[in-house]
This record gives sequence, C-alpha cells and structure tokens, in this order.
Amino acid sequence: MTDHPGIRIEHDAFGPVEIPANRYWGAQTQRALGVFEIGDERFPACLVWTFGLQKLAAARANRRLGTLDPSLAEAIEAAALEVWKGRFDDHFPLPIWQTGSGTQTNMNANEVIANRANETLGQPLGRRRPVHPNDHVNRSQSSNDSFPTVMHLCVGIELHDRLLPELRLLRDTLAAKAAEFDDVVKIGRTHLMDAVPMTVGQAFDAFARQVGLGIARIEAASPRLYRLAQGGTAVGSGLNAPAGFDEAFCEEVAGLTGLPFVPNPSKFEGMGAHDALVEVSGALNVLAVSLIKIANDIRLLGSGPRTGLGELVFPDDGLSSSIMPGKRNPTIAEALLQVAFQVVGNHATISAAGASGTFELNVAKPVLVHNLLQAIRLLADGSRVFATKLVHGLAVDRERLAANVANALLLATALNPLLGYDRVAAITRTAMAENVTPRAAAIALGFVTGEEYDRIVDPRTMIAPAGRREPAR
Amino acid sequence: MTDHPGIRIEHDAFGPVEIPANRYWGAQTQRALGVFEIGDERFPACLVWTFGLQKLAAARANRRLGTLDPSLAEAIEAAALEVWKGRFDDHFPLPIWQTGSGTQTNMNANEVIANRANETLGQPLGRRRPVHPNDHVNRSQSSNDSFPTVMHLCVGIELHDRLLPELRLLRDTLAAKAAEFDDVVKIGRTHLMDAVPMTVGQAFDAFARQVGLGIARIEAASPRLYRLAQGGTAVGSGLNAPAGFDEAFCEEVAGLTGLPFVPNPSKFEGMGAHDALVEVSGALNVLAVSLIKIANDIRLLGSGPRTGLGELVFPDDGLSSSIMPGKRNPTIAEALLQVAFQVVGNHATISAAGASGTFELNVAKPVLVHNLLQAIRLLADGSRVFATKLVHGLAVDRERLAANVANALLLATALNPLLGYDRVAAITRTAMAENVTPRAAAIALGFVTGEEYDRIVDPRTMIAPAGRREPAR
Amino acid sequence: MTDHPGIRIEHDAFGPVEIPANRYWGAQTQRALGVFEIGDERFPACLVWTFGLQKLAAARANRRLGTLDPSLAEAIEAAALEVWKGRFDDHFPLPIWQTGSGTQTNMNANEVIANRANETLGQPLGRRRPVHPNDHVNRSQSSNDSFPTVMHLCVGIELHDRLLPELRLLRDTLAAKAAEFDDVVKIGRTHLMDAVPMTVGQAFDAFARQVGLGIARIEAASPRLYRLAQGGTAVGSGLNAPAGFDEAFCEEVAGLTGLPFVPNPSKFEGMGAHDALVEVSGALNVLAVSLIKIANDIRLLGSGPRTGLGELVFPDDGLSSSIMPGKRNPTIAEALLQVAFQVVGNHATISAAGASGTFELNVAKPVLVHNLLQAIRLLADGSRVFATKLVHGLAVDRERLAANVANALLLATALNPLLGYDRVAAITRTAMAENVTPRAAAIALGFVTGEEYDRIVDPRTMIAPAGRREPAR
Amino acid sequence: MTDHPGIRIEHDAFGPVEIPANRYWGAQTQRALGVFEIGDERFPACLVWTFGLQKLAAARANRRLGTLDPSLAEAIEAAALEVWKGRFDDHFPLPIWQTGSGTQTNMNANEVIANRANETLGQPLGRRRPVHPNDHVNRSQSSNDSFPTVMHLCVGIELHDRLLPELRLLRDTLAAKAAEFDDVVKIGRTHLMDAVPMTVGQAFDAFARQVGLGIARIEAASPRLYRLAQGGTAVGSGLNAPAGFDEAFCEEVAGLTGLPFVPNPSKFEGMGAHDALVEVSGALNVLAVSLIKIANDIRLLGSGPRTGLGELVFPDDGLSSSIMPGKRNPTIAEALLQVAFQVVGNHATISAAGASGTFELNVAKPVLVHNLLQAIRLLADGSRVFATKLVHGLAVDRERLAANVANALLLATALNPLLGYDRVAAITRTAMAENVTPRAAAIALGFVTGEEYDRIVDPRTMIAPAGRREPAR
Repeated sequence: MTDHPGIRIEHDAFGPVEIPANRYWGAQTQRALGVFEIGDERFPACLVWTFGLQKLAAARANRRLGTLDPSLAEAIEAAALEVWKGRFDDHFPLPIWQTGSGTQTNMNANEVIANRANETLGQPLGRRRPVHPNDHVNRSQSSNDSFPTVMHLCVGIELHDRLLPELRLLRDTLAAKAAEFDDVVKIGRTHLMDAVPMTVGQAFDAFARQVGLGIARIEAASPRLYRLAQGGTAVGSGLNAPAGFDEAFCEEVAGLTGLPFVPNPSKFEGMGAHDALVEVSGALNVLAVSLIKIANDIRLLGSGPRTGLGELVFPDDGLSSSIMPGKRNPTIAEALLQVAFQVVGNHATISAAGASGTFELNVAKPVLVHNLLQAIRLLADGSRVFATKLVHGLAVDRERLAANVANALLLATALNPLLGYDRVAAITRTAMAENVTPRAAAIALGFVTGEEYDRIVDPRTMIAPAGRREPAR
Repeated sequence: MTDHPGIRIEHDAFGPVEIPANRYWGAQTQRALGVFEIGDERFPACLVWTFGLQKLAAARANRRLGTLDPSLAEAIEAAALEVWKGRFDDHFPLPIWQTGSGTQTNMNANEVIANRANETLGQPLGRRRPVHPNDHVNRSQSSNDSFPTVMHLCVGIELHDRLLPELRLLRDTLAAKAAEFDDVVKIGRTHLMDAVPMTVGQAFDAFARQVGLGIARIEAASPRLYRLAQGGTAVGSGLNAPAGFDEAFCEEVAGLTGLPFVPNPSKFEGMGAHDALVEVSGALNVLAVSLIKIANDIRLLGSGPRTGLGELVFPDDGLSSSIMPGKRNPTIAEALLQVAFQVVGNHATISAAGASGTFELNVAKPVLVHNLLQAIRLLADGSRVFATKLVHGLAVDRERLAANVANALLLATALNPLLGYDRVAAITRTAMAENVTPRAAAIALGFVTGEEYDRIVDPRTMIAPAGRREPAR
Repeated sequence: MTDHPGIRIEHDAFGPVEIPANRYWGAQTQRALGVFEIGDERFPACLVWTFGLQKLAAARANRRLGTLDPSLAEAIEAAALEVWKGRFDDHFPLPIWQTGSGTQTNMNANEVIANRANETLGQPLGRRRPVHPNDHVNRSQSSNDSFPTVMHLCVGIELHDRLLPELRLLRDTLAAKAAEFDDVVKIGRTHLMDAVPMTVGQAFDAFARQVGLGIARIEAASPRLYRLAQGGTAVGSGLNAPAGFDEAFCEEVAGLTGLPFVPNPSKFEGMGAHDALVEVSGALNVLAVSLIKIANDIRLLGSGPRTGLGELVFPDDGLSSSIMPGKRNPTIAEALLQVAFQVVGNHATISAAGASGTFELNVAKPVLVHNLLQAIRLLADGSRVFATKLVHGLAVDRERLAANVANALLLATALNPLLGYDRVAAITRTAMAENVTPRAAAIALGFVTGEEYDRIVDPRTMIAPAGRREPAR
Repeated sequence: MTDHPGIRIEHDAFGPVEIPANRYWGAQTQRALGVFEIGDERFPACLVWTFGLQKLAAARANRRLGTLDPSLAEAIEAAALEVWKGRFDDHFPLPIWQTGSGTQTNMNANEVIANRANETLGQPLGRRRPVHPNDHVNRSQSSNDSFPTVMHLCVGIELHDRLLPELRLLRDTLAAKAAEFDDVVKIGRTHLMDAVPMTVGQAFDAFARQVGLGIARIEAASPRLYRLAQGGTAVGSGLNAPAGFDEAFCEEVAGLTGLPFVPNPSKFEGMGAHDALVEVSGALNVLAVSLIKIANDIRLLGSGPRTGLGELVFPDDGLSSSIMPGKRNPTIAEALLQVAFQVVGNHATISAAGASGTFELNVAKPVLVHNLLQAIRLLADGSRVFATKLVHGLAVDRERLAANVANALLLATALNPLLGYDRVAAITRTAMAENVTPRAAAIALGFVTGEEYDRIVDPRTMIAPAGRREPAR
C-alpha cells in the first residue's frame, strides 16, 4: 500500500488505510465506509454540526480542567468551530447504519477535527500528531457518552430553533382563522352526522388549541432532554475523565447554545437508555395525531366542490389532476397527513430502538436519532407549509353554511328542556320519516307553536350554554 | 310483547323492549346488547364506578345551578353514589365494542341510576318517572361530554391511586438494591462486550432513576389530563347546559376525588380529540420501554446458572420447567416483559384511535380508554410483582463478579492517559491474540512495569472520574 | 400444613401446597397463582380446550410408540378429551402474565388431566399416581414444544372455524349489495373531491374483493401455521421423546381436527421463533386496514342526513344519542373501526413479542397468542355484526345520487379525447369561477355544441372504458 | 414574466411558469416545487426509472389499440426508455411530501418525457407539442392508476432483483455455517438459562430456515402484488381508456420485466386501497422480526471475550471503541438490528397509510411506497453485509463450548425416563445447592451408579430423539 495521486495512506492502531487525499476523515472512518454498505441514508447536517459544537465544548472543558494542553485545545476548538459552522459537511460520509453507539461517526468527527487542527498547526493530513483523534479530540470522552450527548443537543436545538417556531406559526394562523370566522354559524357534526349548531371559529379555535397544547407537550418533555450524558465516558462511571468534566462541559454548551443543558445525574441512565428521547418522540406522536385530525377535518369540510360538504374553500395552488382538468385537490393537507403517518412510524422505530439497550449501552442510537430528527424536520416543514399555503388562504362558503344550518334536523334538540327527550325524539323521527322540517313536525305534532319554535330554536343562540352570548370554546 | 315472569317491558322513545326483570338497566342498554355481539371484553369496574361519580357530580352541579329539581337531584345523587361504590357493577353488561362515543354505556348509567332513583321514590323499575334517564340523570349533559369526562376522571384516578404507588414501590426497591450493592464492583458491558469496571449499585441506581423519571413523565402529562370536557354537551358549545355548569361540575369532582380537575377551556378540543390521553399513553410507552431494559438486564445478569453471566441470583419462586426438573427461570421478568409488549401495542391502538376523530367527536373513545386502563392496571400489577417477588430477593454472586473483573481485557483502558490510545490498543490486541492478561501484555510490550500497571489499573478506582472516590452515577 | 375442610395438601418436587379441595389443578398451578397476581386477563376457553386436544394426541402418539403404558394412556386420553370438550374450563385459573414459555398453563393442563385420570382410576385428587403430571401426561413433551404447538393448533382452528366463515359472510353480503346496486350511478370521488361517475355496485364490489383477498391472505399464511413444534421437547432436539413422535402426533391432531398439521422440519425454528404467528398477525393487520377503509367509506357515504353526503341510508338499530333525540348514528361501523384499531395494536404487540426470542426459546408466548386469539375473535364478531346488522340493511338514496351526478363538475373529463386537456381545463375552471354547469361553460367557450356535449358527457357510459357497456371493476 | 438566460417560460392550463432552461420538467413540476417545501426525502432512483417503464408500456399499449398516433408513440417510447435507463434522474426534483396520489411525480414524468420527445422531434423544451404531457404521454391514464401501477411494478422488481437474491445469500451463508458446525455440541438455553445439549449446527439451521421462510412469505404475497391498477384511469372505471388497455399494458410490462404482471380485476380495489402493499410490508415485518432474533442470538453467543458467553468469535472488521483500545464489537449485528427497527416502524407507517384511503383513492401513496422501498433496500443491504462480513467469518470457540456443556446442570434431564421427574428434580436441586455436578448429586442420592449416569447422560446422544443418531432439526 503506497501513496499515489489522490490517495494518502493513514495509519490507525490497526494498520494502514488508503484515503482520498482531499478528505479530512481518517482511518476508522475509511474502514467503516468499507464495512457498512447499507442504504443511502445519512445523518442530517445538523447532527454533524452538533458534533462540532460538542467537540468544541469538550476541548474548552478539558482546557479549563487542565486535561488538555492549551495549544492543542486551541487548535481543536478552532477546527471544531468550523465543523459546527458547516464547513466540513462533505467530510462526514458514513451511513446511519453503523455500530449502535455511533462510534464511527464520533471517530469521523475526531478524525476530521484532528486532521484540520494538525493542518492549521502545519502538519499534513493523516499525521495524527500533535493532535491525536482519540487522545486529544476525544479527550475525557467516549463515543458512548459523546454520541448521546450530541443526540440530546441536536434534538434540543432542532426542537427549539426549527419545530417550535413553526408550530407557533401554525397555532397563530389557526387562531387568526378562528377570529376571522368567529361569527360564522355552521352545523356541528358528531359521528359524521348532522348535530347542533356552532361556529366555524369554534372549530378553528379547537385546532389552534391542539397545536398550542402540542407545544406545551414538547416543553414538558424538556427537563429530561436537557440532561446530558457527557462525562460518563465508557460505561457511565467517568473513567479517564477528570472530576467536574460533566459540569464544565454543560456550562460551555449552555453558553454556546443558550439552552439550559445540565449534567445527567446518572450517566448510566443516559447511556444505557434513551427514555428521554422516546419521551420526546411520544410528544411528536401526539402532534402527529393532532395534525391528522386537523388535516382530515379541513379536507372534509372543503370536500366538493359540488357534491361534498363544501363549507370551506381551499386556496388555489395551481396544481391539478393529470386526467381531470381543472380539478382542485387538498394537496397540502394530504402532504401533511403523510408527514404525520411518517412520524407515527418513526415513533414505533424509536420505541423499539429505545427498548433495545442492554447493560451499559443502548446500541440503537443512530437509528433512533435519525428517526427523531426526521420527525422534527418533517413536522416543522409540514406545519409551515400547511399554515402558510393552506390554512392562511382558507375561505368559507357562507351560503352553503347557512343552508346547511337551516336544513339540519337536530336543531330541535334545543326543545329538550321544554318538551323532554321523548317528545323531541318524536319530532325528529317524524321529520325524518316524512321528509319535512323539524319545525313543521313539531307544530304538526302539537308540541309547540311556530312562534315558540322560532324563539327557542335559534342557531345564533345555540352556540353557547344557556345564558351566555359569546360562543363557548 | 307482554310482561311475563322474569321479564319486564320497558319503553324508550323508540318503542317497547323486553328486559330481565331484576336488572336495573333500561331499553337503550337492552337494545345495545342485541346489536353489539362482539367479543367478551368489558370495561373494568373502575370505569363503571367513575360513571357513578360523574352522575353524582353532575346532579349536584345541576342542583346548585337550579336546573334540576332538588328532590329528583337527591334521589339521583343517592343512586349515583351507589354506582360509584360498586353496588351495581352487575348491571353494566355492555361490551367495549359499541358506538364510538360510548353512548350506550352512558345510557346504561343513566338508565340504572334512573331506575334505582325511581325505585327509592317508590316506583317500579322501567317507569322512567319521576326520574327520566335523559331528561334528569343526563341533565345538562350528553354522552359526548360525559364519556370523555369519565375517561379523564378514571384515568386520572387510576394513575394516582393505582399506578404511581406501585411505581414508587418499584423505584424504592431498586434504589434499596443500589444501596445494598453499592460497593460491589463488576465489569461493565457495552455492545454486550466486556468493558471497564463499575459497581452493581451503579447499575441498579440507573434502573431506579428510570422508574423515577417514569413517574415524572406521568406527572408532566397531568395538566392536560385534569382538564374535563363536561359542559360541552352535544358538540362542545354547551347547548342545553346552564352557563357555569362546567365549573360547578369540576368543583364537585375535585372535592369528591381530591384531584385538581378543571374545565377544559375548549370543550371542542376535549370532545373532538383525545390528545391528552394519547399523551398519557406516550408516558406509559416510555415506562414500558424502561421496564423492558431493566427486565432484560436483570435476566441476562442472572443467566446461567453455570454457563451464563451468573452475576445475579434470582429468588426461588417454586416454579420449574415441565421437562427439566429443578430448572429455575426468570419467570417474573418474563411476565413483566410481556406486560411491556402489551403496553407498546396498546399505545399503537390508542394513537390510531386518537387520530381517528372527525369534526366535533372522536368516535373511538371506548377502545381508547379500554386500552389505556388496561395498560395502567398491567403496569401497576407488573411493577409490584416485579419489585416484591423478584427485585427484592435478588442476590449477587460475589465470587463470579470478582472473577469477571479480574479476567477482563479492557481494564487497560485506564492506561490511556499515560500511554495513549495506540499503545493501549497494542496491549489489548496482544493480550487477546496471545490469550494472556493485559497486564502480562503491557509488561511484555515494555510499556509499563508491573508496579505501574497495578497502581493505575485498579478496578476499585476505575468506577469514578479521576479524583473522585465514591462511585459516579 | 395440614388438610382441613375445603383444602387438600398436594406435593410437587418442591414441597407441599394448599389447594382448594374441589379444584383439579395441582401444586405448580397453585404456586403460580400466588406469584403472578397481574391483571385479570385469562386465556380464552378455546386455548384451554386445545390443551385437551394436544394432550389427547400426545397420549395417543405415546401409546402408539410404546412410550406410555396403555392403561395410563387410556385414562389420560379420556381426561384430555374432557378438557377438550370444555368440562374443566373452571380449573384453569392462571393469568396470561406468567412465564414466557407458558409453562404454568402447560403444567395446569398436566395437573388437571393427571388428577382427573387418577380419579377415574380410583385415586383421590393430589395423589400424583399412577398418573404423574410430568412423567405421563407430559410424556415426550416439554412446555417448550407443547405450548407453541397449542398456539398453532388453536390459531389454526380459530381461523378455520371462527374467522373465515364470518369473512365469507361479509364478503358475500358486500357482493350481494354490489349486485343490488349494480345499475346505480354515483359520482366517484378522489382526494374527497368530486370526480367522474361510477356505480354504487362498483364501490361495493371493491369492498367485497378486499375482504375476499383478506381470506386469501390468511390462507396464504397457512402452510407455515400448520407446522407444529411438537417433538422438539426442551430445546428442539427431541431429547426424551421417541423418534417419530412428531409425525405420530401430527397424524393424530390432523385426524382429530381435519386440518393438515405436519411436523415443523426444524423444531428449533418453531420454538425459538414465532414468525409463523407474526405472519398470521400481518394478514389480520391487512384485514384491519381493509375494514377501516370500508367502514369509513360507508359511514361517510351515509353521512347526513341533511348536510352530509347522504348517498347511503343506514338501517335503524334503535339506538340514539343521549341528548339529540332521534339522531341515528353509524354505531356499528364505529364498533368495527374500534375492532380494527385494536387489531392494529395487537399486531404491534405480537411483532414485539415475536422479536423477543432468545436462543432456543421465545419467551413471550402467552402475550403473543392472547393478542392473536383476541384479534381473531374480534375480527370474526365484528365482521358478522357489520355484515348482518349494517351492510345487509343498507339502502341508497337514488334522488340524492342522481342529483350529485348531475351537479358534478368534472363530467367534462369525458371531453378530453375530443378537446384535449387544456381546453377542458378552461371549461371546468370557467364553470367553477362562474358557478355554472360545465355544459354551459363548454358551450359558452365555443368548444362544443350542446348536442355534442350531451352525447359525449353521458354518465351512463362513463362508468367503463370506451367501447365497453357493462361497468368496469 | 419573460425569458431570460437560464430560464424558460412554460405554460400549462393555469398560466406561465419560470423553469430552469436546462431542466426537462414542466410547469406542474415547477409549481409543485414551490408548494411542497417539506423535508429532503426524494423517491429512490428505481421509482423514477419505473415511471419510464410504465410510460413506455402505456405508449406501446396505446399504439396497439390505436389510441395514440404511431409517430408520437415512437417519440414517447424512446424518451420513456431513456427515463427507464436512468438518463433523466436529475430531472425529478420533487419531494415525497406531495399530494397523496403522487400526481406531481406522475406529471413530472409526463412533462420530462413530453419535453424529451418533442426535442427529438425538433422542438424546443416547453413547447408541449406535438407531444402533450397530458394528452399523449398520459394517454389512457390518470395519476390515480399510473402511480399505484408504478408502486406495484417498482416493489415487485425491487423484491425480485434486489431483496430476494440477498436473502438467498444470507440463507445459504447461514446454512453453510450450519453444516460447518454440524458436529459441534453446545449447551442449549431456554429462558436464557442453561438447558440441555444441542449442536451449533442446529442453531444455525434454524436461522437459515427463518430466512428461507421469509423468502417464502414474500413469494406468498406476490399474487396480489402482481395485479396492476393500470386501466382504471380517474376512479377505477377506465373512463377515457380504450377497452383492453389494462391487458395490453400488462402484456407489455410482463414482456419488459419478465415478471407475471396481470390486470387487477377490480381497478377500484387497486386504487382506493393498497392492501397488497400492506401485505408485502407485513412479510418484511416478519423478516425484520426474524433478523432481530438472529442478530441478537449471534451477538449474545459472541459476547465476551472474557466474561460473556464467548461461544462464537466474530471476524475482525478493524473497527474499535473510541476510548477502549482494541475493543471488538458486534458492529454489523447492531447495524442489522437498527435496519430491522426501521422496518418495523416503516410497517407502522405503511399500515397507517394503507388504512387512510377514502372512496376511490388512497391518498397516502408517496409515503407508503417510500417506506416500502426503503425497507426493501435496507433489508437487502443489511442481509448482504451481515452474511458476507459477519456470518461468513464466524468461528466457534470449541473449548468454551465443551466446557459449558460439561458444566451444565440440566444434563440430568436425560434421566427422566429412568428415574421420573421428581427424583431428577432432587438431583438438580441438590447439585445447585451444594455446588456439585449433577453426576455427583445423582450418585450421592443413590439413584444411579456412575456408570449408569455416564451411559445415559451423554451429550452426544442428547441432541436427537431417542433412537436417532443424527441431530434433529
């Protein structure tokens, strides 16, 4: 094995390896490339960046605690910062499908940073000194605590920076629609069947609340998410790390991210299990469930245009059927539903991965974090597109809504307090059997006069408890 | 259709029905029995009792707000109290598999209470007056708000009274073992492979923490769970309920249960969706995931007795193989694992049910609450049996543990700071290839003296970060 | 420990145990009762019966192969037959949640049959001779091969005797509706939006086919299901069983059941894994998915009665809302949907259980078979009730159907071959914007005459490919 | 909007759109790009290629039936062939997350092929004539039948060409190991506890059979998979397609692929539901379950090297821990486990997607096929890597295996037929309590002589039923 153009030879503890000359990764990464020829899924860039953040904070903590030479620390920190800033994304070639501790990706980060640090110190790639990927970049660390730390960091950042803003946008867009349609009376439906009146605003207010509660659920899971395993090293005990490394590290990442990361009081818990991430996935699963409900309601209410419910009108997105010219479909609602189905499946994968840990290490970390980050990304994008391109442009068909209310059978429910259940049942069954209005049936049966009926059965007052004027929520 | 011995004829709005004379249910219940001949699953008794509680609180709220005649209210309250106390369990015959709003079970409660109230007022069963099941027992209510209210009440009570105490017992039993085994050094394992030392206490501390965090997760979901839909009536608007009914009702149930139930600010959200219950199920799913990890670790550590890991010794439960006489198996751990698999599946059902709501009503309420209550019951029972009959009696095999530590290969990891990764790799690879101890290999390679080795590679100090004496967590 | 009224003392290999005097179970069962105080789920009766069948066939096989004294075999066979016939159901008290091999339930069967056999041979209960539960009833067997054998037998019988007949009934009921509505033209809907015409018969034909294919899927899984592990004894090797026991056993059960059970060529495969049952569960999962589609379509098509689609009319089941008198809901469709959600969750449990085996034994057998048998029962009952009480009574609203077809926008699609996509798009977009019929728009745009339009755009000919007269499938 | 360098203006039925000048896609694709800004998941190349195949076969069928001008057909066929051969992969930019019918990707194919065909006919991109994307490329088709047809085609091809060969490789590699280890006796384990002897070959034979049955399961699902919806056009009726189009199309694709594709007898079934694909996913789910069992067994048997079971020895893949130098982990088994967890979650997504169809169209097609193709790819790659890089190189530690067998407690089970269960129980319980061999205990208890013991308790004969010499399966 000799150097030739475009190739350099790098050695690790196990011998020499050929590596593309212009790549910053090293021997362990290259070996792993040859082993894990599975699929084409790669970690999202944010995970690679977070490894930069993690190595930066670790080097700073090591420097503070005197376990890393300041000059090496400086070079490592600079290189790690570059990884964090996305300048080495192309140097992380490994698939998701690797060892379950994510060791190969941790070594990839160690190797890229070591090579880059050595380069800035005047060494060629592959020299492994003065900065050694294991002894210095990985100092006081193991893959076993670094990878789960990166998982928590990256998920925390993505939730905070990516998902929550889009959820707030969706919630607010739905709430704006609730306000816009506050006075629009519609027929409520239970069991898909016509029931009693309500407002369109009430329906959208419920949607907005579902999303708002989804935000609260993610926030409720955060206390566990913000606990980091860093400092546990190989099995959780902290062997080869200095005392206080966990706290120093967390101070650094908290400062760098602005998020309140703290040491996990049991590193063993944070490395052997990933319950905190399964919990976050559970919160996303609820969100998926909420979005399925909302998207289904909206597309059903907009069904038609002529033979469906037709109460909502979708904005035109310029897309149509390939065979039925001019057909307008709830395309975006369907995209969102598919996102939600994906998240539901990701949750199953995450739960299975979370349950699979043994002894001191959960070895399904890559698949777990891959699925969680995908879920976050998709829910964020899906919520934004749904909010901006569908919900925002929704209109109501006031004529259709009014006609539906006027036509409804169960308005007579408002007579219950006056007539009692059994007589009102006679009214509605008569109306249905004879295909007349409940008003006509009520009068024909002699239970009320038309005047009484009209006073009591008034959709505008049926949208709230007795004695309240504004729509109930 | 005429009365004959053992049968009475009861009428509802749709005509006469034959009912066993000694049953307190009425016509709608009887009709439903004839329709839903599906499976033999029935709601657990606690759900029936909670309907008693709900009708009691509703009658009191109606009385306070003047929407129910005090003499009728009094009779209803007394009858509802009896249902709450479990005196009418045999009068709730309906299967889970009914209409998705749980209407038939709500009507079952209305009918039993009406019949019982009328009976105490001197009327025969089936008279439907002076207390009418719909007009009085169901006053200001619908199945659509009552059933989800009962779901939240019952789940809240079961979590509080049944599950959380057993989880605390399990957590404390695990923590007691952590203390008992605090000084017992063992070999840690990652990827199932021998790694570096730790204590048995550290492992059990992590288990205890997993369960403790499980408790925190359930508590974190409670703010949404304690919100009740009562007061929404048919679609969420509160039609036919008096203003203030929701608050009055919640004050009553909070007083009766001691739990902080409050009105859901959007009844629409609480009837059309059941996100709060999907959220609780998510917390139980994490618990299942945790218990799978714990039970698997314990049964693997106790595997053997001669050719497994053999570090833990199970208490004898007197059960054995049907063919291998005297064989002792981790039976209880397996029972717990099966409970956990059940909970994982229930979570899938609950998520699917939660996503299936349309418009103003989720119509998968019975299956949802059935699965949630089953999960709570099984986790509670499983945790108690696991704690008291397995964990409590666990012993360690100190000889085996010590031999395993002495025999381990990667103790040499402690030399990393002195020698660097690459030379330690040479030591361990040599030790493995030549089947010698790492100590012998280290000396043979000339990297350290025996004295240096013994000072640095000391399992008793390898269980914590450098400079700390007590085991890390 | 002494005998006293109502109690007898029975001994097993581990000492004496107090047992209710009138119960036929023995010491291992009684011990297990004290250990597994978890939940109240019990195996369905059919599993208990199948243990009778299994012990009967095993005794016969032993007799044939000379490994069991004929006089003992005779007594065992008679007792096992009684268990098969359901005469000892009350003597199987154990919960699902036991050891993962089902050993306690196998021992329960061994003990009941031994006690009963000894009783017929003139011995008191508890004597354990001449028939010993392990040495004779369990002869040539282990729980490890007997329990999975019972799983396959019971699932095979339940599929054949319970589920498939009800699926055929549902398929035929749907097919009968397809025939009944063969000539009824309706508007087809894609993306929930109005599309082009079809017949109601075509929709029901598709439903019938879905169920028919569901039957085919179950049958396709049968070759693996009919393979039995019996003969593997403790680990799969057949230790302590005579050569040929597997074949003799299968001949017996095939004769007793009429189903083509054969020996699994690898007992190890059949005991360490339960892939064949996970496969069956997968087929039931597809069925659940099919039924969700069918039930949803039917309840949506019957939504209304005044403001929904209203194309189908449900039969009256006499059940109504507790607050909206006379409201008729698709109660049975909702019950079926809930059954389907349960089956989806059971499938998740079954998959997790199936994946959890280690080495020579899958130890999640009880939870696996419990969930599978529940799924079969619920799908069978749900299909029958859905067929007989909902589908059979469905009617169509021909007026509404015709009005919807007449009103549809995309009928103009039939003009594509004549005018091309772009001009037809202009027609439909004009019709929508100006709220006119596509016919009016087409004429106004000068693309066709009214006569041409009426000839080409004829819903009665639009239900099949060009040149075919009968409706396509 | 005007042409400028690098941009061309293309018109569709809804107006002008700016498109990168060197891209072959058209207006609908470009519009969709602006709408569906969700995630970065794209269909795998094989799906794009299959669209080429589908359009090729459709053009041929149209030509045969006279519904497409031969000169246009020829140009379309040539362009479609290029898409099939992968020459236009870069011209399919759309995300998975689009409308649920996959219309945008179908239009993408129509537009690329139309542009390419027109180009070969001397027209610039964007001219839409003489070949029009809807009128000619999509002739006799809709997205609603084309996309599901592509789903079935692509899944069928991927199963046949990609997955099944790798599964056969894995099965054969496992079977070769079974042969290699045919005579190696090991201790069997049930409940993770030492049981009775067997051979390593028997264990690997069971693994090989699991994979072999997995192949059979995929094949068992094929009859439904090979049914194509093509010919159903918009709703299933075949409107605007010529009679016989379905058969002509299937003849073409069968000829082009060599796979026995046939028309679905109900196009409605094939467009409104995707049960056949859920069924395939169920078969893959069983495979995932099988692989979890196999991978777990292998990594547990290879655990150690010093304090685990240590019966298997993994080949060295050159990868190690980042902190524990020289540590060798079962990396590939972990990668395979993660693949399996992914497949389990994909199955949940696919089931949810499959259940979500309404009326004449399932609108979760893209997410469904994306998850199914990913599962196929990952299982194929994972199986190959597992077979070639792990299983193939597995060795056994014969010393350890022999020591474990010699040390086992339950060898005494072989004495059951001679002594009966209760006396053998006394032997094993004595051996355990006094920490002696069962042989010593048996002799000490006076049940057998040493000579008798050695004759009966011979591991070499305990691996098969009595009277058989070769190892049982």
